[in-house]
Parts: sequence; structure tokens; C-alpha cells
Amino acid sequence: MEIDHNFYMNLAISEAWKYQGLTYANPAVGCSIVGEHGELLAVEAHHKAGEPHAEVNAIKAAYYKLTQDEKILQLISSSQIHIYLLQNHNNIFKKCSLYSTLEPCSHVGKTPSCANLIAELGIKNVFVGVEDFNTDAANGNTVLEKSGANISLHVEQQKCEDLLFPFKKFMSDKFVFFKWAQRLNGTTDAGIISSAESRKNVHAMRDVCDLLVIGGNTVRNDRPTLDARLVNGKAPDILILSREKEFDTAIPLFHVKNRKVYIESDFSRMNDYKNIMIEGSAKMYELSRDIVDYYLCYLAPAFGGHDGFKNIEDKFQILNADKEEEDIIMWMKRIEDYE
Amino acid sequence: MEIDHNFYMNLAISEAWKYQGLTYANPAVGCSIVGEHGELLAVEAHHKAGEPHAEVNAIKAAYYKLTQDEKILQLISSSQIHIYLLQNHNNIFKKCSLYSTLEPCSHVGKTPSCANLIAELGIKNVFVGVEDFNTDAANGNTVLEKSGANISLHVEQQKCEDLLFPFKKFMSDKFVFFKWAQRLNGTTDAGIISSAESRKNVHAMRDVCDLLVIGGNTVRNDRPTLDARLVNGKAPDILILSREKEFDTAIPLFHVKNRKVYIESDFSRMNDYKNIMIEGSAKMYELSRDIVDYYLCYLAPAFGGHDGFKNIEDKFQILNADKEEEDIIMWMKRIEDYE
Repeated sequence: MEIDHNFYMNLAISEAWKYQGLTYANPAVGCSIVGEHGELLAVEAHHKAGEPHAEVNAIKAAYYKLTQDEKILQLISSSQIHIYLLQNHNNIFKKCSLYSTLEPCSHVGKTPSCANLIAELGIKNVFVGVEDFNTDAANGNTVLEKSGANISLHVEQQKCEDLLFPFKKFMSDKFVFFKWAQRLNGTTDAGIISSAESRKNVHAMRDVCDLLVIGGNTVRNDRPTLDARLVNGKAPDILILSREKEFDTAIPLFHVKNRKVYIESDFSRMNDYKNIMIEGSAKMYELSRDIVDYYLCYLAPAFGGHDGFKNIEDKFQILNADKEEEDIIMWMKRIEDYE
Repeated sequence: MEIDHNFYMNLAISEAWKYQGLTYANPAVGCSIVGEHGELLAVEAHHKAGEPHAEVNAIKAAYYKLTQDEKILQLISSSQIHIYLLQNHNNIFKKCSLYSTLEPCSHVGKTPSCANLIAELGIKNVFVGVEDFNTDAANGNTVLEKSGANISLHVEQQKCEDLLFPFKKFMSDKFVFFKWAQRLNGTTDAGIISSAESRKNVHAMRDVCDLLVIGGNTVRNDRPTLDARLVNGKAPDILILSREKEFDTAIPLFHVKNRKVYIESDFSRMNDYKNIMIEGSAKMYELSRDIVDYYLCYLAPAFGGHDGFKNIEDKFQILNADKEEEDIIMWMKRIEDYE
């Protein structure tokens, strides 16, 4: 295995994918920091909108690794961490290299600017996967150049583009992903499939989705709640795709507070939303095939069940496969020209 | 992500799994080397019996990274590398740490002893996943202790045990693994499933297997060759499991040189062999369920086909999932107490 700039960028990319979807309305971003002698100091990601950016999480972790100053571990908000680092960095980052999947931001929003922080700390080498297209946040590279940092652009660019794509999509239009859980033998029926860890991850996804799309038959058969109770999160609005508009109103999903439920026969409602998860199996897969950007599969290493994705021919590219304690979580895109 | 001793051991473990099966009759072993300041210098594995051990591959890579001395890149055999390192190391490894999934060997076989090499180089800290049980090769730790190295045992021990298990099994008895290729939707039929990279990997596996077990119906229907031509390797002996003993002798597998073919109605022939791959799908899975040690699944990210593993209930633990260019290669063990 070659240990080079791509290696450190790939560590950042893998870490970022663990939070893909969960960072909405922010992008999924990862960041590694390597010290003066090539020592790996931190690999971190952005976890959730409102929380510190990947660069700040990584600089915080690197600062602790270099100084063992436990005070920084107490600091949670991005502002606190920025202020503490600016006051206490003692130039320990001067000879470090920073790898960020996305150009560090230049705008001061919920947090101060990452580019300014990196410039103030005097980080010597900055490796960037992909430049920011968001005019509010872009120009981080300009800030860094002025500070005298060496900037290398387009490190593992394609992988960083794939990571950033959902952000680009919901910023310009809407991002639609199709999520399902299956066993290794391809079945999606017959009771609970995913591990507790995966189910919690799905609830975290629901917490940040603004619309969840589900088929009418699934609602009738499974009588689901479709909330985010496992993470104490908010329940997304629901679009039930169904020609038949009557449902038993005792089904729990209709009784979740602060939620709209639409029962409609097409997907046009999606145009009112930005971050949309479709939950389903074979039938919904086929119905939504032309409007889905990415696929998210929770794969449980088990044989069992009966029905799954039959009579469908499609090919995917695996963008990331993350082995959890039990399951594998895969983000994929469909290969368009597959016949 | 925490960057600690487990992190470096896990890099070694992941690298080693890529060669699981291919190192027969040696164990799959991985090794990372970290420099004086915590800089990652190498992550390597043992690739094939007769070639350098993981520690030698890692020390070679680390030496090149530290010295940029290109002469070492020309050296292929373990003996050459050992001699060159002993003459040219200049004490550059004195403050390094070495992480090996298995206790470095103490015996001089096809290669000089790794423990002696590490001792001669004066590597300061040695982290070991699991101690060697093989009395010929063991006592590496004793050699290292005498040299003054700090040895830490049992780093990620369980994971290193899982990695080593096939070796323990074929040393004491025989190692049996069940290999199959499937699409994401669980199908194992209807033409080529795996990527070119995966198919080549299967041929490399066949090259080092001494027996390949296959079902009679598969032989009749697929008329396979079952050799290792994609890697110019040797073809394993074949056990065709079949009550019906007559086969069309024009089927290519019967015409491969230097191969024995047995047509038998039970698995007892396996007792004459050490490293045994069963290739099959649902029916063979059920027949062999009680005699299989590990499962090896080549998962292609595609929907298609018709038949797969139906009417089977089982649960697995994924020991390693390696994302190749296209497919995922998974080593698993069955969870015994699953009902």
C-alpha cells in the first residue's frame, strides 16, 4: 500500500462518507492532518449542520494529540474552538499539512471561516479535493494563498466530487436517494433485517430528511411510524405514493406531530423539498428509477426471507462501503449506460 | 477517528486480508511501520509462500521511504533484502515501531528469520496481534526481548486471530472455505457475475488450493475448466460431488494436465488435502454447511439473474470486506448459534 497524499486524502474521504446525508444542509466533508514529520495527527469529518466543520474537528483533534491539552476537549461549539485555537496554538501547526475533501470555506456563518483559521495557524501545505462552487463559501483558496500556504488542488478529485455531489444537487435543485435494507441473499421482507446500529443510522437520516417517500402498500402492510425516535430526532414529512387515497388513519405515521402527510399518485410533491429519502424495495425501485441520484443500501450478512429485487437488471458503482459492527452500509450510483 | 496503536494494527490487518488464501501454506500476515515521530512509513502484507514475509516487505518499503535508496527496489528475494538491509540500515530504524498481526518468526526457512532482522535493525517498539503457535517459527518474541525491544502483545488480538485462523486450521487439520459470486440482489445464475478483477482473484485462489470441490450438476450444466489460467497458475485437483458417476468426458475440466479428478458421493476425500475451496451456490452451501470454516463472497453491485440462496436461514459475521475497483470481496464466518 502506497502511503502518499492520496492515502491521507482517502482517509478523509472514508471518514466523510460515514456522515453522508447526516450533514444536510451542509456538505459531507472530511479532513486529515499530518504533522511536520509525516505523522498522522487527525482524521475527522463534519458530522451535522451547526456543528464544527471537518477542518475544525481535525485541527482540534490534532491540537490535542500534539499538546495533550485537555481543555480543548471540553469545547464543543465551533466558535469556542476557533477562539481557543487562535489563542493557544503557539505555532505548532506551522509545518503541518492539511487534507480537505472540499476547499475550506471563507464565509463566516454559524462558524467562523475555516480558511481564516488555517491561515492564522500558518498551516504550510493544504491539499484540496475539489473547489467549492458555492459562491457564499468559496474563495477559501484565495485566503490561503494570501497567507502563504502551498495549495495543491484536485487530490483524488473524482472521489471528492462523488462525495460532494449530494450537496451540489440539493443546493441547485433537490437530492433524492433511495434507501433499502436487505440481507446478503437479496431479500427485503420477513421482519427486521438490519442491525440495531443500522436502524439507528436510518433514523438519523430521517431526522435530517425533509421528505420521506414510501409506497402505499408498504404503509398498509407494515403500518409504520417512520419517525426518528431512535435518535430523538424530528420526523420528516411523508409522501405516500398511492393511486388509492384511503388509508386506515390509525396507522401510526399519521399521528406524528409536526409532520405533513401527502397521499399522491406521482412524485411531483418532491419539487417542494430538498433532501428526499425514498424508502422501499423492488416496486418503488422501479417507479423511482429515473429520479434517484444515489442509492443507500444497508446490507445485513444473513440469509433468510423470500422476496427481493427480482426481474430488474441494473448495475451500480459503489461509491463507499462502510463496514459497521455487523452490517455494511453502501452508497452507490446507478451506471446510466447499463443495458 | 482515533489514531492509536489499534489504528496502525488495523491498517496491517486490512492489508493482510487482501491476501487471505493466497499465502497458503503460509499464514496471511500484515505489518505496519511507524517512524520516530509517528509518521506512517509502510503498510504491507505477505503475498505468497516463498516470497518475503510481511515484516520484510514493510521494512523494505519503510527503508525506501526513509532513504529514497532505489537499489532496494530491485531486490526481490527475501534473502537479498535481508542482506541489503543488514548492510545498509545505518540505524535508521532505531526509533521505529513495528506492528505485526503475527509474532515475527524466529526460524530460518526459505527466508532468514524476521525476528532476527528486527533485532539487528534495533527496532524499538514491536506490537504483536497474536503469538505464533507454530513451534518451528515461534519464539520470535524471545529473540526480540533479548535485543531490548519493547514488545506489546495482543493488539487487536481477536481480529488477528480471525486473520490467522485459516493457517491454524490447515496446519492442524484442513481449512475449508466456501466461495461464491453473487449480485447484490442475491442471484448466482445467468452468466458472468464478477468483475475481471474478481475473476482473476478467484484463479489466484485456485492456484494455491490443493482441492476444489464442485457439484455434479454444475459440472454438467456449466462444463467448466476450473483452472487458474488467468494467473498462469496450476489447476487444483477436483472433487465432483455426485451420486451419478457418469460425465461427458469432453467437459474441459477433465483435460487439464497434472490434475486428479474424483467423482464421489461424499466429502471424505477432503481428508487427503489441506487447503480446500468449495465453489457453489445454494445446494452446495447446504450440503457443506457443517464442514466449512470460512465463507468467501464476491459481491457484484448489480441487479439481475433469477436464482440464488433461497430457503436458507443463516447469519454471518463479516471478518473483512475489501472494496475492489468494482466488486466487494468479503470473508465471513457463520454465526454458529444462529437459529
